[in-house]
Amino acid sequence: MDAKSFEHKKVLITGGLGFIGSNLAIRLVQLGAEVTVVDSLIPTYGGNLWNVEPVRDKVRINISDVRDPYSMKYLVAGMDYLFNLAGQTSHMDSMENPETDLAINTLSQLQILEACRHHNPDVRVVFASTRQVYGKPQSIPVSETHPVVPVDFNGVHKLAAEQYHRLFFDVYGVRSVILRLTNTYGPRMRVVDARQTFLGIWIRRLLEGKPILIYGDGKQLRDYNYVDDAVEAMLLAAISNNCCGEVLNLGSKELFSLTETAQVFLDLFPGGKVEYIPFPEDRKRIDIGDYQGDFSLITARLGWEPKTTFHEGMRRTISYYQQNQQKYW
Amino acid sequence: MDAKSFEHKKVLITGGLGFIGSNLAIRLVQLGAEVTVVDSLIPTYGGNLWNVEPVRDKVRINISDVRDPYSMKYLVAGMDYLFNLAGQTSHMDSMENPETDLAINTLSQLQILEACRHHNPDVRVVFASTRQVYGKPQSIPVSETHPVVPVDFNGVHKLAAEQYHRLFFDVYGVRSVILRLTNTYGPRMRVVDARQTFLGIWIRRLLEGKPILIYGDGKQLRDYNYVDDAVEAMLLAAISNNCCGEVLNLGSKELFSLTETAQVFLDLFPGGKVEYIPFPEDRKRIDIGDYQGDFSLITARLGWEPKTTFHEGMRRTISYYQQNQQKYW
Repeated sequence: MDAKSFEHKKVLITGGLGFIGSNLAIRLVQLGAEVTVVDSLIPTYGGNLWNVEPVRDKVRINISDVRDPYSMKYLVAGMDYLFNLAGQTSHMDSMENPETDLAINTLSQLQILEACRHHNPDVRVVFASTRQVYGKPQSIPVSETHPVVPVDFNGVHKLAAEQYHRLFFDVYGVRSVILRLTNTYGPRMRVVDARQTFLGIWIRRLLEGKPILIYGDGKQLRDYNYVDDAVEAMLLAAISNNCCGEVLNLGSKELFSLTETAQVFLDLFPGGKVEYIPFPEDRKRIDIGDYQGDFSLITARLGWEPKTTFHEGMRRTISYYQQNQQKYW
Repeated sequence: MDAKSFEHKKVLITGGLGFIGSNLAIRLVQLGAEVTVVDSLIPTYGGNLWNVEPVRDKVRINISDVRDPYSMKYLVAGMDYLFNLAGQTSHMDSMENPETDLAINTLSQLQILEACRHHNPDVRVVFASTRQVYGKPQSIPVSETHPVVPVDFNGVHKLAAEQYHRLFFDVYGVRSVILRLTNTYGPRMRVVDARQTFLGIWIRRLLEGKPILIYGDGKQLRDYNYVDDAVEAMLLAAISNNCCGEVLNLGSKELFSLTETAQVFLDLFPGGKVEYIPFPEDRKRIDIGDYQGDFSLITARLGWEPKTTFHEGMRRTISYYQQNQQKYW
């Protein structure tokens, strides 16, 4: 990527105080962008002012909710780039409160895109979606042509939001790219519970001297992306003219069972323990089984591939939480 | 179908004063069911009290909006069957007012299904969806495994509602079947405009002595179902234990270009005229091109196939509007 691509560019990041949004904001500030982060700071959603501490004086922070169409209309105007990351990410919460999930993950996206269309049609949009839209894979690795059969409301609502982004490009020419993220992890992720990724709560338990809990037999397969790699994909997607209106998977060259994942933790954290427990019924019925994303399309379109091994990424992540524990507990 | 299947059964039809809902209500009354129709009577949506005139004293009519969760909660309780047909059907209107379309076609469905889950988990649900969820066919005939890439908000929102119905079965055991209807036509369809099907406005124009208008070259292919055939599919789906949570296409053995479709009209209505006009830009960009549904799956599951030829169905339809013109203009 040309290091000047974002210099002096106006960038809006929804969910910008959250895990991925804040890492993206820090990177964009380093690249010389003028960054506005918008975040609702809803307690369970992962927004945390400490996340942007390294660039606190260099970003504009706007606390508002994407469900508020008036603030969004004002905020998108004049932006060169919109990284659309705000959302409710918990699968379980979406089952408890599907209407809230619909309002945040679907209706808000419609309103944001309507704001772009009417007030800033030239903005470039990157939408952070999720592999959850596929549901239980019929086979792995899963490419973008795999059927979309989400197993929870969160997947249904993110899928509708994806379709909005595609439609606003096809019908109105608003240039969007949709990235389907897989398990992203790294510094600044939520660790108090599994609402973003179970890797967060695993780290917390280890640092608290508690065993990691694995549901079921630990044989489920997962792929992981270190947050810097996910951020790089977003930056590349934002500036490319080669993927407007398209859906692109992220993914990893490495594939781990949950047991193997835990082993990486234990290598980095000697003395840690793992405990296997029965799958809770409410989680089991929305579980997707094995997953691995096929990311060959984004490699072809944008030249992206993940650069950080899981071992190295986890080492950095654990180190971050050892140093910043009190800000995330 | 066993003629006794619906005898003394309690049946709720949302959108029951609309085109398909009213034909279904009339049929169910003939089969001995206790029918409640619920309809908002929103002026442009096709609800019309005259539609249930033949069974006016034998159905319970409840005027309310599916967006009203309180009325729905009350109405679904105690029902044996729910035919879930209420919706906004106009592709163009969905582009003008996507938030309204989302509220009616998606949010309401979530609320109705939540009402079923909590207040009547044993109810059997048939959801009327649309071939619009496929978008522009990659090839025809289109089977249920064809990718879903809707070209308008209506398609996005109906797709999300389909996913809700499947999820409520998979996760909570509420038995639903999703039918993807193609162009349905027949007595009681809306004829004042093309909000339900262009066949309606064609009939009206012919009866008014005006030419049928065809956008573009008239080569686009379409399949049509006479409403009695669509109603039969819904009844079969409601009582089968063979397709819960599934999506089934309707379709026709006959396939017509728009020009050939117009020719059927002119055969039945000598002296009628056809006029070709350029495709309006706002319609062109959400047009799906050729379409034909593959209905082999519903034939395998339910033994359904359409019985009424387009020529015969149109003959009955034109005759209905000649007799009831003043009620639909």
